[in-house]
Amino acid sequence: METLAQTPAETLAQTERTRLKRVHERGHFDKATVHAILDAGMICHVGYVVDGAPYVTPTIYWREGDMVYWHGSSASRMLRHQAAGAPVCLTVSLIDGIVLARSGFHHSVNYRSVMVFGAAREVVDAQAKERHLEIFMERLFPGRWAEIRAVEDQELKATTLLGMAIEEASAKVRTGPPVDDEPDYALPIWAGILPLETVAGAPVPCPRLAETTAEPAYVRAYKPG
Amino acid sequence: METLAQTPAETLAQTERTRLKRVHERGHFDKATVHAILDAGMICHVGYVVDGAPYVTPTIYWREGDMVYWHGSSASRMLRHQAAGAPVCLTVSLIDGIVLARSGFHHSVNYRSVMVFGAAREVVDAQAKERHLEIFMERLFPGRWAEIRAVEDQELKATTLLGMAIEEASAKVRTGPPVDDEPDYALPIWAGILPLETVAGAPVPCPRLAETTAEPAYVRAYKPG
Repeated sequence: METLAQTPAETLAQTERTRLKRVHERGHFDKATVHAILDAGMICHVGYVVDGAPYVTPTIYWREGDMVYWHGSSASRMLRHQAAGAPVCLTVSLIDGIVLARSGFHHSVNYRSVMVFGAAREVVDAQAKERHLEIFMERLFPGRWAEIRAVEDQELKATTLLGMAIEEASAKVRTGPPVDDEPDYALPIWAGILPLETVAGAPVPCPRLAETTAEPAYVRAYKPG
Repeated sequence: METLAQTPAETLAQTERTRLKRVHERGHFDKATVHAILDAGMICHVGYVVDGAPYVTPTIYWREGDMVYWHGSSASRMLRHQAAGAPVCLTVSLIDGIVLARSGFHHSVNYRSVMVFGAAREVVDAQAKERHLEIFMERLFPGRWAEIRAVEDQELKATTLLGMAIEEASAKVRTGPPVDDEPDYALPIWAGILPLETVAGAPVPCPRLAETTAEPAYVRAYKPG
């Protein structure tokens, strides 16, 4: 979690797309909040438009500074389309709990979400690509990059890496207990939060792993978020 | 989980949008698989297009038969736009694990995802709306609908409920261990799956809940998926 102290430069400008039209108290435009949510997630949903129709594809992403990156096969239609500069919306959402209220109407969900609007830029330089992939791997599993088989040139060619500036972005957060209509608080109806969390289970070794190959500490140390 | 037995009517037709261009073995077009994934999720990401630009909004959804539903405030720009018949892409993705391979290139994610393409239809009849909301609540917390304060007409008016047929849809699933380049299996590098799961924690009662209000069994019985 970065510092919450803000200077003007640490606040993202609100635009027609990111300004909240309703429930304004849920909106956040400070970089610290946007970055912290992006760092807590691993899967984003990238929206893009082909022939006027929307597509939403789940994919792995990671943040580096004021950039967000995602990647995949160079044969991917989605990535080729996005690499050509098509507008995208990259959304990350983390669900923290179900909010049970005294009326159906006030049931809700506690969540943290970020939307980043923009256009992607392809990272074409092989060395730069490799460095970004290393940063990504080391974020998930510190120390693993040095252990795995070295990247081959043809693998870098087969990988399309896209980056997008986190400039037009906003976060939405709901936390806390249910907010009921005042008279409903007196009703004998259970209300509260059912917390939800993503957890890692015990690692499952590859069936073809040699018994002498030890499980690295970073595998079991991994914590989602 | 529904039966996996298939008749032609239980298979969704492949279209230009849903046909897989790569990694064909991951694609599934049988209703049983598509429905099972939709039933295991709770949050979808709805993509839509405004002035040529994509938007991706996370929201709660549920399935009833061959329809998928989502809802929200009648003041929501997103829902008003979608209710007007704009094309949408509703994507659900469930992340089951991180796949650690012997090379960076073959790292992957085990997941189940569904994309549903189409246009939403607004459910405007108040009684129908209420019935759908009841079905949704009873799916999550069986017995709760009868316990909570009754729905008021103004709440139904303030709620926009959208439904979309699950006709143009496809599932993508990856399961199993890493698939490495054959020579890499001999390397002394740990490989395997780190399973990920969403779990519910201990319910947190509303601070304004009377101490005499017991926690219903369905709260603690809730299991994501």
